[in-house]
Amino acid sequence: MEFTIKQIAGMLGGEVRGDGNAKINMLAKIQDAKPGQIAFLSNPKYEQFIYTTQASAVIVKKDFIPRKEISTSLILVEDPYNSFTVLLEEYHKMVSFQKSGVEQPSFIGENTFVGKSVYRGAFSYVGSNVKIGDNVKLYPHVFIGDNTTIGDNTILHANVKLYAGTQVGKNCVIHSGTVIGSDGFGFAPQEDGTYKTIPQLGNVIIEDNVAIGANTVIDCATMYGDSTIIREGVKLDNLIQVAHNVEIGKNTVIAAQTGISGSTKVGESCVIGGQVGIAGHLVIANKTGVGAQSGISKADIEGQHLFGSPAFELKKWLRSYAVFRRLPDLSDRLSELEKKVSKSIGVTSDK
Amino acid sequence: MEFTIKQIAGMLGGEVRGDGNAKINMLAKIQDAKPGQIAFLSNPKYEQFIYTTQASAVIVKKDFIPRKEISTSLILVEDPYNSFTVLLEEYHKMVSFQKSGVEQPSFIGENTFVGKSVYRGAFSYVGSNVKIGDNVKLYPHVFIGDNTTIGDNTILHANVKLYAGTQVGKNCVIHSGTVIGSDGFGFAPQEDGTYKTIPQLGNVIIEDNVAIGANTVIDCATMYGDSTIIREGVKLDNLIQVAHNVEIGKNTVIAAQTGISGSTKVGESCVIGGQVGIAGHLVIANKTGVGAQSGISKADIEGQHLFGSPAFELKKWLRSYAVFRRLPDLSDRLSELEKKVSKSIGVTSDK
Amino acid sequence: MEFTIKQIAGMLGGEVRGDGNAKINMLAKIQDAKPGQIAFLSNPKYEQFIYTTQASAVIVKKDFIPRKEISTSLILVEDPYNSFTVLLEEYHKMVSFQKSGVEQPSFIGENTFVGKSVYRGAFSYVGSNVKIGDNVKLYPHVFIGDNTTIGDNTILHANVKLYAGTQVGKNCVIHSGTVIGSDGFGFAPQEDGTYKTIPQLGNVIIEDNVAIGANTVIDCATMYGDSTIIREGVKLDNLIQVAHNVEIGKNTVIAAQTGISGSTKVGESCVIGGQVGIAGHLVIANKTGVGAQSGISKADIEGQHLFGSPAFELKKWLRSYAVFRRLPDLSDRLSELEKKVSKSIGVTSDK
Repeated sequence: MEFTIKQIAGMLGGEVRGDGNAKINMLAKIQDAKPGQIAFLSNPKYEQFIYTTQASAVIVKKDFIPRKEISTSLILVEDPYNSFTVLLEEYHKMVSFQKSGVEQPSFIGENTFVGKSVYRGAFSYVGSNVKIGDNVKLYPHVFIGDNTTIGDNTILHANVKLYAGTQVGKNCVIHSGTVIGSDGFGFAPQEDGTYKTIPQLGNVIIEDNVAIGANTVIDCATMYGDSTIIREGVKLDNLIQVAHNVEIGKNTVIAAQTGISGSTKVGESCVIGGQVGIAGHLVIANKTGVGAQSGISKADIEGQHLFGSPAFELKKWLRSYAVFRRLPDLSDRLSELEKKVSKSIGVTSDK
Repeated sequence: MEFTIKQIAGMLGGEVRGDGNAKINMLAKIQDAKPGQIAFLSNPKYEQFIYTTQASAVIVKKDFIPRKEISTSLILVEDPYNSFTVLLEEYHKMVSFQKSGVEQPSFIGENTFVGKSVYRGAFSYVGSNVKIGDNVKLYPHVFIGDNTTIGDNTILHANVKLYAGTQVGKNCVIHSGTVIGSDGFGFAPQEDGTYKTIPQLGNVIIEDNVAIGANTVIDCATMYGDSTIIREGVKLDNLIQVAHNVEIGKNTVIAAQTGISGSTKVGESCVIGGQVGIAGHLVIANKTGVGAQSGISKADIEGQHLFGSPAFELKKWLRSYAVFRRLPDLSDRLSELEKKVSKSIGVTSDK
Repeated sequence: MEFTIKQIAGMLGGEVRGDGNAKINMLAKIQDAKPGQIAFLSNPKYEQFIYTTQASAVIVKKDFIPRKEISTSLILVEDPYNSFTVLLEEYHKMVSFQKSGVEQPSFIGENTFVGKSVYRGAFSYVGSNVKIGDNVKLYPHVFIGDNTTIGDNTILHANVKLYAGTQVGKNCVIHSGTVIGSDGFGFAPQEDGTYKTIPQLGNVIIEDNVAIGANTVIDCATMYGDSTIIREGVKLDNLIQVAHNVEIGKNTVIAAQTGISGSTKVGESCVIGGQVGIAGHLVIANKTGVGAQSGISKADIEGQHLFGSPAFELKKWLRSYAVFRRLPDLSDRLSELEKKVSKSIGVTSDK
């Protein structure tokens, strides 16, 4: 990319102070920026750097008043952080959308429809009866099973695997190594101690604007016609386990290494920490917050914040844990008191 | 598939009530079924649906007596759930065994023997000196290192990776992204603070009828001639860690994201929850049950049910945790009592 | 391999007792060894086996005095375990360095430099503007994004994925399925309840002599110019999560399934157990030890050993947990005491 400061100010609806004709070719942090780069200043504790930065331009708040001389150009906006994010996004689009066309060798099955401007990397495998929307990026080693659909603008990074029948919406990003549609963990115990596999015939549906991290696993639903469902706007981190028949509600965010057991329905707009375990067949209320490493066996109150394993209300848990820390002391005090009382009552009784 | 109700009843050893000549082409749940589909009724709380279902046939218990008029055909059997599972399995076999032949490009090394009716997907890699049994399915991007063996009817889903020397038995299913035979985590501390890698020269043996989920990792044994062993009938879920030299006994079932440390021997017929951690060099007794998120440092009593981290007997743990929940109250009561006693004894002493 | 006992003694700087001309072709444990194999005796509790072993040679301590007759040859050294490790390493090198050349089909981009004696397995993908050092091994299905560098002698096992811009040092080993450089988990909440993706533009730097297990994930840094950094000599196990902008200090060792949240800086020479969770934006002091399954929210004292979730000093935690185990008893004793005191004070008051 290469734009003038004036052009960038135009994109951001901002105002230029200083030279608007200098060229910008990269984004950087204010303390690290070099000539030709643009930075931003939002947090006052970084203000010191604006007086020494080598950035060619810095995005600042409209009402920013420098306390010393400044050599860089300024772009004045309402919200510098937000404006910088807009630039980051534009840059990212330019970079990530540059891949296109078909690298060889790649594999494509029968009756498969591929939209416009699709990138299919070398060694990518697309099965039969697949429908791929416009601007989709399939990086190398992606595996797309038969009878799947992928919406417009979705990016599957290297080696994402979609089992047959999976449906992925528009504007999704799925990172490397993630597996979608593997068998649910269903085995019926037999009288001889062995287990019989319960065939897993459902699929996975991922709605629009979903982001999924790397090496995460989402199992298919058990019954034909049923689906494990990831609703619109959900964000899943790396190494997450989503079992068969789970449904995750709109705009819920889940951090790395969390696991959700079979048939649980997670509400909308929940924020779930890392390494959390959620039991099966639960209904988690909307806006539930769950602290890292918690174990959830019940979560039916909207907006509740849970902690611990098994988890209960965060504040209560913290109070209990504060006492846990001094349990040895508590135990000693109890013993001491028992002695005193026994002696005292003994004395009393002796009377 | 397309069978008459009579044919299906024959397969299940059941009896038809109603039209036996209607055609069935799919399985479904009783509340969702459409004409041409077959459902089952086992749990009485779903009985209401049999009076309104559009299914062409419903499998019911031999002694089922309808309380209202029914328009669907019935198949009467001993155990409707079991019968339905049989149908699911048959359907699943028909679907999953349709893949065969060799897609191109695929790679095959020297001195490698491949059995009959094997599917080798595009971009699958089979090394040298490998032995692959009959009806094996190697999905795209599978990696089979040198000197491995794979038994009849085993299915390796897309991108399963077997390091050199791995042995997999018959009738196994391994899901996408799973790694078998990676190096055990062995490093010897040196005087300068660095670690020296201890070469990992053993392998992994997976016996017959084992199922392994997606993105699971099983490390090889350390010494040449030693093996990490997964015994017959074991079922492992997704994202599980099995360290070097572990042995997992027959028919043990382990849920997702559990980790087993080096050289531990897990008994037969254990049931281990998700996100459990098991320390190294332990012997876990047969039929041990372990609750989700537990940490096992000892488990030598057969049939014990463990919970917590470090875990102890489930019932005892739950009793302790019940007190944990009201620790702040306990602490307050103790302080109160101390005041009372101090006052009382003070009074007593004053006398 | 095939060497005489004399040749091996020469390599180890040891002295031969017995036949030095017998041929050795494999390493084994003393209790399992067969003719033609070499074992070692270090731990006295295995001494019994030296009198019955079929090994052609056993490496023993210089001052070892047999208590019975021995039929095997001996190699006398300072430290038998160390000497055996040297042999294991030599053997391992011979085995693992045998792969070389380019298998087809494989993919290589433009402006990419490949060093001498590099192995590129079939279906490996190397992007554009990549620099690969000498003796590098890229196993099948490896994905190397654009603008990456890989140092001499580094081994990437089957299906390792390096996103664009990743830098890997010399003498590293990365196991199958590991993903390096995926997007950090960064989303800005919007007023309508949705989340906006914060573009992740940094990279990952892995220094020399780092080992990384299978199916681990290391996210890239958020800002362009920033890096998630794994310092020299770090050893990471399987299924570990390393979030954006994390730095892991020299010679730190981390066991399987541990997760480190964004922007945390782990010190040098730490030893961190399995399934540990570390919160974001922390500075973990050098030489911190962390027990398995712990949750770290603070760790600023060098050499401290932490346990629990949230973790505190190990010994204190264990004392608290010892009381936790008998909490129901403690609770009963408190109630009992309350009754006694109430009665006693009642009596006292009655007087």
